[in-house]
Amino acid sequence: MKLTFASIKAASARIASKVHRTPVLTSRTVDRLVGCEVFFKAEFLQKTGSFKARGAYNAVMCLSDSAVARGVITHSSGNHGQALAAAAQDRGIPCTVVVPWNCPQVKIDAMKNTYSAHVVLCEPTQESRANTVTSEVAFTGATFVPPYDHFDIMAGQGTLGLELMDQAPGLDAVLVPTSGGGMIAGVATACKGINEDIKVVAVEPFGKRLGDSLATGKRVVDEDQANVMIATVADAIRTMAIGSVPWETVLDLVEPQPLTVNDTQITSAMQFAFERMKIVIEPAAATGLAALLDGQLSRIGEGSSKRIGVVLCGGNVDVTQILPWQQQ
Amino acid sequence: MKLTFASIKAASARIASKVHRTPVLTSRTVDRLVGCEVFFKAEFLQKTGSFKARGAYNAVMCLSDSAVARGVITHSSGNHGQALAAAAQDRGIPCTVVVPWNCPQVKIDAMKNTYSAHVVLCEPTQESRANTVTSEVAFTGATFVPPYDHFDIMAGQGTLGLELMDQAPGLDAVLVPTSGGGMIAGVATACKGINEDIKVVAVEPFGKRLGDSLATGKRVVDEDQANVMIATVADAIRTMAIGSVPWETVLDLVEPQPLTVNDTQITSAMQFAFERMKIVIEPAAATGLAALLDGQLSRIGEGSSKRIGVVLCGGNVDVTQILPWQQQ
Repeated sequence: MKLTFASIKAASARIASKVHRTPVLTSRTVDRLVGCEVFFKAEFLQKTGSFKARGAYNAVMCLSDSAVARGVITHSSGNHGQALAAAAQDRGIPCTVVVPWNCPQVKIDAMKNTYSAHVVLCEPTQESRANTVTSEVAFTGATFVPPYDHFDIMAGQGTLGLELMDQAPGLDAVLVPTSGGGMIAGVATACKGINEDIKVVAVEPFGKRLGDSLATGKRVVDEDQANVMIATVADAIRTMAIGSVPWETVLDLVEPQPLTVNDTQITSAMQFAFERMKIVIEPAAATGLAALLDGQLSRIGEGSSKRIGVVLCGGNVDVTQILPWQQQ
Repeated sequence: MKLTFASIKAASARIASKVHRTPVLTSRTVDRLVGCEVFFKAEFLQKTGSFKARGAYNAVMCLSDSAVARGVITHSSGNHGQALAAAAQDRGIPCTVVVPWNCPQVKIDAMKNTYSAHVVLCEPTQESRANTVTSEVAFTGATFVPPYDHFDIMAGQGTLGLELMDQAPGLDAVLVPTSGGGMIAGVATACKGINEDIKVVAVEPFGKRLGDSLATGKRVVDEDQANVMIATVADAIRTMAIGSVPWETVLDLVEPQPLTVNDTQITSAMQFAFERMKIVIEPAAATGLAALLDGQLSRIGEGSSKRIGVVLCGGNVDVTQILPWQQQ
């Protein structure tokens, strides 16, 4: 089974009345600095503050009648949890979110208070997440809706790619912050379904090493890599390994050379976005902008005067996270 | 002479390729809190960070060939100065900006460094602004382009009203932050030209007392009011009196009862915008949202379930201005 363009089109029709068609922003200052025309897909303005609403609404709307009664459960460092809770609340069903204890408090608060989710804490490892979900499912019978290893989720995330291709025609490349790979698998399938020549490029935080996996064709390069969370300021994209479900699509469609940015570059890009673009983006969302400002387009063979799409995936940032640059 | 709908349509065609058609944002959270459908015109995403680019580009593009050679000059607490400097830079002509010394440094820096303006400081009074401009004009022969007392400026600002009416059809009312009155005169002429029943409502910082002027039909109620700058966190809208040129239009078209918000309400609205809407708006731009969150719609006779437009006029905020709520 593989993610299809048709499933993304179907998801788009299904969730159209539930989520925002987010705007595409441009900045003359960015264009001048980068030497390209850059089109930012503003998913930080999406419902629940990130693109995750797309996949979550799609998955919850696809639930069978029998599954609906028992509700849904997931594990999430925040954004997927908020999104699933919102989608469940919209459909009037219960939702449990298993959350690593180091997740930003603003996200936990939103899940509990705004979206009425039942929040259960776990250790910040993939293993602890999975074990805690298993234990909760045994207790409640809820349907597990994973953050990325799920075709309905991937199809939902891909809908932002359909919109971007319509809003910014003729793109040469799209930069996509990448963690478990659900978004980039969906976006790549959507964008390449419209223009097979477009380059879909992963942007990763320092430490992820997606390039090693793409070079060897092996999803997990190190034996214990699947269980690792990266130490990065980009709390939404700490997952080391691409998920097993998106993997085949990512290997097929995504450029073999990801762009990599470190914490300093990420926080500088957040500050740039705040001061020059007047927008609040979380660290994960700043990775694409950070790579552009670092002049990394040449690494994917793109010169000047190209048209580049960048996904600004979310805006769920603790106010305290922007304190460092203010105290300088 | 009076501002006309036709002049706004002409300005819109003139500046279309120079400025952004800014998006209109919605927020389910705001709608729920306010009990209305609220449509935010995102002028903080406008070129130079505020709606002022519209009027400035229009005015500079309307200059005669003989005036072009000598350049332009204005006085501004920041946003109009940035906008005029950018428009002048775009047309390749010199620009001087007279700036009150208490203007945020981020705005002065942008004028000098990004838009190559010649910056001259003055005292933070209308009198000092005017005298300094007169002295500079005598020296350089530049054309004075005032912040609001100018038909080309008012027509340019009005173009945001045309867009808003197109982007959010069926509005019952539009809230417009008001200082010298150039924007609200333009927006009122544009909106009422499309739907004469729409209410155009001024939002002012505490201390402005526009309502007294509208009630008496006298532009300046107190004898020395014209020269007063209000002490408010909303640095972009410190002018006490409506300008003499916009005044007639404002008296004709704007609701007699303005909404008034204080500094605490303004900074709370800025925080709300940052945390919940993921956007960076300056204090002046937060006034409309502040009035909504304070439940002031009833003051203009609007109940629930209405469609309300709100102009988020700019995003040029010093990062240090958002420190207070972070240190609580």
